Amino acid sequence: MNASHPAVHPVGVPPAVAGQLPPRMRMKEIQGMPGTIGGLLLRLGQFCFALVAFSIMVSIENFSTVTAFCYLVAATVLQCLWSLALAIIDGYALLVKRSLRNSLLVSLLVVGDGVTATLTFAAACASAGITVLIGNDLRQCKENHCARYETATALAFLSWFMVSLSFILTFWLLATR
Amino acid sequence: MNASHPAVHPVGVPPAVAGQLPPRMRMKEIQGMPGTIGGLLLRLGQFCFALVAFSIMVSIENFSTVTAFCYLVAATVLQCLWSLALAIIDGYALLVKRSLRNSLLVSLLVVGDGVTATLTFAAACASAGITVLIGNDLRQCKENHCARYETATALAFLSWFMVSLSFILTFWLLATR
Repeated sequence: MNASHPAVHPVGVPPAVAGQLPPRMRMKEIQGMPGTIGGLLLRLGQFCFALVAFSIMVSIENFSTVTAFCYLVAATVLQCLWSLALAIIDGYALLVKRSLRNSLLVSLLVVGDGVTATLTFAAACASAGITVLIGNDLRQCKENHCARYETATALAFLSWFMVSLSFILTFWLLATR
Repeated sequence: MNASHPAVHPVGVPPAVAGQLPPRMRMKEIQGMPGTIGGLLLRLGQFCFALVAFSIMVSIENFSTVTAFCYLVAATVLQCLWSLALAIIDGYALLVKRSLRNSLLVSLLVVGDGVTATLTFAAACASAGITVLIGNDLRQCKENHCARYETATALAFLSWFMVSLSFILTFWLLATR
């Protein structure tokens, strides 16, 4: 008896109800994450602010007599290199439409962003401390370039702010991977 | 006919294979997260380091002539209050065996930790900049309390390091919730 009675056992599939979300939401694409246009713009912003801060600080003669200002120069150079490299990678990923969601790459980005953000912020704070000391506490702005110190410090803070945005978004991506 | 032939339909349960993990691992309890003994110890460490940094800085006469040192005092006071409050909450949660995994509370902790960590770090960096300026660049350690400035700054850095550990763990908890 080859002709059989095919028994069909229907399986109950729960109907998809609108508004009922799956238990775990994944944030796929937030602007600012690596591989997005927002991410590329963040990187370019970091690079530009750090570059201008570096240029202003280097343009001041005798800046190297204060350790904190030398440190600011070093930190902004590192920030420029890091942000430029990441901007190139972001641009390439956008161009060839590749996703930068590799687990190892994201971990590397989190560590790099964390380190450069910390260094840039530390340098900006140290410079701010010295600038306030010269301007407010010692009142020696006549002999010094207070306005230029302040501008360089403010730009370093802006650069740091954008790096920390990148850091938070990339860390979120790593955690929700 | 009440006596029936009870039909048993065995349901195939896949055997638990060692090494085969569910697709999504949730990190339930990492020491250092809120509501753990590690978290309580981190909070106590932050509190103690900030308190000692504050005490050393306040013990120096004329510290208030430098804005950055006043800022360090303010930041360590804020850090002390925040860490003490969180240590009490952690201790209470451990005592009554309650979990601190409330979504709103974790968000609040992330924001609070982020803000206090940033403020403490900024104050420590500004103080470090001034201390290096006085000690290395101007070589005026004889007239100033360089050792005490350095100690207070180093302790503030230690406190910041522990707050940032708390921040990273709580942020991870928030992201993987």
